[in-house]
Amino acid sequence: MRIKAIKAPQVLNEPVDYNNPVSFSRGIKISLQEASILFISGTASVDNKGKTVYKGNFESQVKHAFKNLTALLGSERATWHDVVKTTCYLKNMSYYEIFNKLRNKFYKQQKLKPLPASTCIEANLCRPDLLVEIELIAIKKGLK
Amino acid sequence: MRIKAIKAPQVLNEPVDYNNPVSFSRGIKISLQEASILFISGTASVDNKGKTVYKGNFESQVKHAFKNLTALLGSERATWHDVVKTTCYLKNMSYYEIFNKLRNKFYKQQKLKPLPASTCIEANLCRPDLLVEIELIAIKKGLK
Amino acid sequence: MRIKAIKAPQVLNEPVDYNNPVSFSRGIKISLQEASILFISGTASVDNKGKTVYKGNFESQVKHAFKNLTALLGSERATWHDVVKTTCYLKNMSYYEIFNKLRNKFYKQQKLKPLPASTCIEANLCRPDLLVEIELIAIKKGLK
Repeated sequence: MRIKAIKAPQVLNEPVDYNNPVSFSRGIKISLQEASILFISGTASVDNKGKTVYKGNFESQVKHAFKNLTALLGSERATWHDVVKTTCYLKNMSYYEIFNKLRNKFYKQQKLKPLPASTCIEANLCRPDLLVEIELIAIKKGLK
Repeated sequence: MRIKAIKAPQVLNEPVDYNNPVSFSRGIKISLQEASILFISGTASVDNKGKTVYKGNFESQVKHAFKNLTALLGSERATWHDVVKTTCYLKNMSYYEIFNKLRNKFYKQQKLKPLPASTCIEANLCRPDLLVEIELIAIKKGLK
Repeated sequence: MRIKAIKAPQVLNEPVDYNNPVSFSRGIKISLQEASILFISGTASVDNKGKTVYKGNFESQVKHAFKNLTALLGSERATWHDVVKTTCYLKNMSYYEIFNKLRNKFYKQQKLKPLPASTCIEANLCRPDLLVEIELIAIKKGLK
């Protein structure tokens, strides 16, 4: 068994590099013989300097969060096909319909089947300008 | 390793069959050699046509959510004895005491021991008429 | 595969011993051959009689929650080095900066590397006087 941090510095800064250091990893990968488990932290529309991008624009924030998540998965050679569960937090549930449209379109582009399990709730996020945050669990075939 | 969607169409519609398609599976099962892991999506008082049932009635909504969860588990020959973690979302935390009474009674009927780990928070759910939503993780002995 | 409840009665009462019984375990451990998985329930600043401690004092509540979590992990000979994912719930997101300072300090004392993956949202908790609640997943090397 091996545990390592997941990083994608080309799109997302390391939380410890914030001015007020934030104490988590962008993700953790646990490598077991038969499978690897990836826990990706709540991920939002943040750039590689740690700044919120697309303030006030829900659609662009969703797309940017997906981009960041894709990069984090990709850094461990995982894809959305390995994602088994997402938890989605919307700043306001009035975004739910548009969120589903965007997610549907994205999943169709990825040709996902089956779709991940998921829960979606309304919640205030760590910064007032973040409108969406998504965390996920992925499980990838191991070496066995 | 094998990944499949969990369904219980006799009690719960498929999210992709909504008019405004919702992009998740009711659950995902990952079959490993020693054990299977089931991630059941946030599940509420919804019927097999995708309609909210028992609007305004917290107690009935809890019972119906348990019924749906039981069916989803059962579709993979799992039971509440395999449930290791629940996350419970209440529309209003004033329901917490009655929620625990109902959950206690249900778990006693199932003769659960030990009880699952759990977190319960207040949250607005994807529809204003849903008063409770429960997601869960179950782990079931595999073939090894 | 073996499933057992996680307890630390010296610091934290059993939820079933509340006057109005609460139906969950403080944690569940699943022992597999290669690894054990620990799901620790949402844990707050509660004492071994089930009472909220440090009402109104966010900093002390965080420290007490960490103490309780450490005891729950320790009861299964796990440590914070085994923690792969936390979910943190703050009663008010205005506590986020101080929360990170406290968590950073605590993790540094534990010499954690890598840090756990994490999501943090604002949420009302099961009692109005609880200001923070943390749940976690730990994975510990097994016998294989």
